[in-house]
Amino acid sequence: MEALKQKIREMGTVLSDQVLKVDAFLNHQIDPALMQKVGHEFAERYRAQGVTKIVTIEASGIAPAIMAGLELGVPVIFARKFQSLTLKSELLISKVFSFTKQTESTIAISAKHLSAADHVLIIDDFLANGHAAKALIDLIQQAGASIAGLGIVIEKSFQDGRKLLENEGYRVESLARVASLEGGQVHFLD
Amino acid sequence: MEALKQKIREMGTVLSDQVLKVDAFLNHQIDPALMQKVGHEFAERYRAQGVTKIVTIEASGIAPAIMAGLELGVPVIFARKFQSLTLKSELLISKVFSFTKQTESTIAISAKHLSAADHVLIIDDFLANGHAAKALIDLIQQAGASIAGLGIVIEKSFQDGRKLLENEGYRVESLARVASLEGGQVHFLD
Repeated sequence: MEALKQKIREMGTVLSDQVLKVDAFLNHQIDPALMQKVGHEFAERYRAQGVTKIVTIEASGIAPAIMAGLELGVPVIFARKFQSLTLKSELLISKVFSFTKQTESTIAISAKHLSAADHVLIIDDFLANGHAAKALIDLIQQAGASIAGLGIVIEKSFQDGRKLLENEGYRVESLARVASLEGGQVHFLD
Repeated sequence: MEALKQKIREMGTVLSDQVLKVDAFLNHQIDPALMQKVGHEFAERYRAQGVTKIVTIEASGIAPAIMAGLELGVPVIFARKFQSLTLKSELLISKVFSFTKQTESTIAISAKHLSAADHVLIIDDFLANGHAAKALIDLIQQAGASIAGLGIVIEKSFQDGRKLLENEGYRVESLARVASLEGGQVHFLD
C-alpha cells in the first residue's frame, strides 16, 4: 500500500535493526485519514470472505480495526490486556509475551461477544514474531469461531511471524512489508 | 444524541447505581457505525473552534476520537497508561486514579506531538468524577497548548465531573447524559 509506505519513509524512525518507531501516525499519534485508507484496503482484501467480526488488541490495533469494521459493516472487539471490574465474567484468556517490553501479559475477550457462528478477521498494527497474533487466534478458537485471516498494518518480514502463521494455514495480508531496517533505513520487501 | 441513547437503552447493562456496562458497543465490542455518528456529532459541535489536535486516552477513547479526527481533519493522540521501551524520551506525565479499578496509573504523551500552537479537543468514552479528564488537561497544559473543550460519549451526570470541569471554565459536550441508574434503569437527563 503506497500511501502507507510513503508515510513510513517520511515519519517512521528506525531505532535499531529490530525496532521501527511509528508513533507519529500509528501507535501514539494517529493519522485518521491514513487509517481510513488502511481500513479500506483491509476491507477490499477480505470483502468476499463473509467476515462477521473483527478482533484486535488494545490499544494500537483499534484505529485500523474500527475503520475496516466501518467499511465491512461488522463489529470490532478489542482484546484487553488486563481484567477490569466491569469485565470479569465469562472471559476467554490467553497469554502473550512482548519482546519489546520483556513482559508477559494476559489478554482477554468476553465470551459473549464471539460464537461458533462467527468468521473473524484479525487486525493488528504490527506483525513481528507472531506472538500477539497467536494469542488472538487462541482466544477466537476457544470461542469456537473460525478465522478468515489476518490484516496487518506493518509486517517485519525479517522476523518469523508470517511464516509461523502461514505454516498453520492462516492467510496473512500485510499492507507494508519491511525487509530490513539495516543502516537506519527502511527497506520494503516489494 | 438519540441514536446513542437508544443503543444504551438496548444494549447497556446497569450493574449497580454507579456502574453502567457498555461493553457491547463502546468499550470492548465497538459498533463502528455508531462511532462514526458519535465522531460526526463531536465534529459538528467543535467545527468552528479551530481544533488542531484531538487528545484521548487508551483504549476506549480511541474509536470515538479517531472518527471525530477523521471528520475534523486533525491528528489524534492517545495518552498511554504506561511507558513502553519505544516511547521513553520526552514524556509529559500525569497521574489518574480509577475508582472502577481502585488503582492509580501514570498516563503519558510524547512531548513532541503537542506544542503551544495546538488547540486541543479532549475526547473520552466516559465522564464520571473527572479524574481522567483532569489528568489529560494537565498533560496538555504541560505542553503549553490550549483547550477547545471536552467531548464525552457518556456522562454520569450524578457524579461531579462536569461541575468540576465547568467550574474551571472548560466547555463539556456530552452526547448522552445519565441522570441516574437507580432501580436498574438508565434515566437520561433530558
